[in-house]
Amino acid sequence: MRIFLSGPSGVGKSTIISTILERNSDFILSVSYTTRPPRKHEVEGKDYFFITHTQFERMIDQGAFLEWAHVHNHLYGTSLSWVESEELKGRNILFDIDVQGVRQAQEIKSPGCFIFVIPPSMDDLRTRLDKRGTEDENTMKTRLDNARQELKAWDRYDFLVVNDTIGSAIQDIQSIIDACRCSRDEVIKRLPWLLKIG
Amino acid sequence: MRIFLSGPSGVGKSTIISTILERNSDFILSVSYTTRPPRKHEVEGKDYFFITHTQFERMIDQGAFLEWAHVHNHLYGTSLSWVESEELKGRNILFDIDVQGVRQAQEIKSPGCFIFVIPPSMDDLRTRLDKRGTEDENTMKTRLDNARQELKAWDRYDFLVVNDTIGSAIQDIQSIIDACRCSRDEVIKRLPWLLKIG
Repeated sequence: MRIFLSGPSGVGKSTIISTILERNSDFILSVSYTTRPPRKHEVEGKDYFFITHTQFERMIDQGAFLEWAHVHNHLYGTSLSWVESEELKGRNILFDIDVQGVRQAQEIKSPGCFIFVIPPSMDDLRTRLDKRGTEDENTMKTRLDNARQELKAWDRYDFLVVNDTIGSAIQDIQSIIDACRCSRDEVIKRLPWLLKIG
Repeated sequence: MRIFLSGPSGVGKSTIISTILERNSDFILSVSYTTRPPRKHEVEGKDYFFITHTQFERMIDQGAFLEWAHVHNHLYGTSLSWVESEELKGRNILFDIDVQGVRQAQEIKSPGCFIFVIPPSMDDLRTRLDKRGTEDENTMKTRLDNARQELKAWDRYDFLVVNDTIGSAIQDIQSIIDACRCSRDEVIKRLPWLLKIG
């Protein structure tokens, strides 16, 4: 089962993701391939799969990616066969993914639930970014503009979770995950007798 | 919000429905129109809206029904404008509905979540019907044949809930309802600012 989670920067996605992973031991976070050199403490196969530019481009040519993107001069992508092999081991995958990635995943008709975490208002998002205290006015403006651009894609998602409080957002996402476990395409896998009846 | 709940006779749907209604005070059970005469203790507008055959047929001609059916010489149907007026009062509607009704609701593209409660196996359903102890062998055969026919329609539903235990089925349906509250079309109603952004 695939859960795709998006949300603009500052909306509280990282806290949500770590809590969801703690509470759902059958879920793992998607591990991307990247051409970025490993940072200290980053572990191959846990944080990323580190590959060369040439290797990455070969994978693009082979259609090996569920989604990929160019970010700050480096390439990042999720390998479809990595996802499928984890699924074969019975694992469910949580994707921390942006709007562009979702667009690509939907283009290749990936199954899964698409969830968008949104702030209660743009003012609220500004307040959250303010509290981080690390942004100058220009960076802030860019972030808010980016968020506004991303939020325009709300209609690509099956579910919208308003992050009023982190607790209620986590509870909503847990319900969505539990509901996705009951989605027709998930349940029918476990019920061969029902397939035979039809 | 509309939750459509189906399931073959004997699967435990009535217990599920009464528990869900107890726990979700914003939900009411859909009230049907019928040409059947009222039974003792049945209350107009609570159990059914009792109307004449002529009135019912006029409503059919007007396209007034979300779904309707002929059952044992009587007509039963859900009025679309009744549903809409309840929704305007802020109520959510739970529909106890069969496969034919779901087909009609989907034909007129009613919004909503479609949930099918299914037994863990056909043997399990037979055991449940056996326990009722009121069925002769012929009635039992008819009920199982009907169930098999209904179960063929599993792919019309968004969610399949296996009634392994009544507790787990109720919990699954509660998660589905909570997830449906987060569905894009429900949430966007409460977020005019997000509509304006896009």
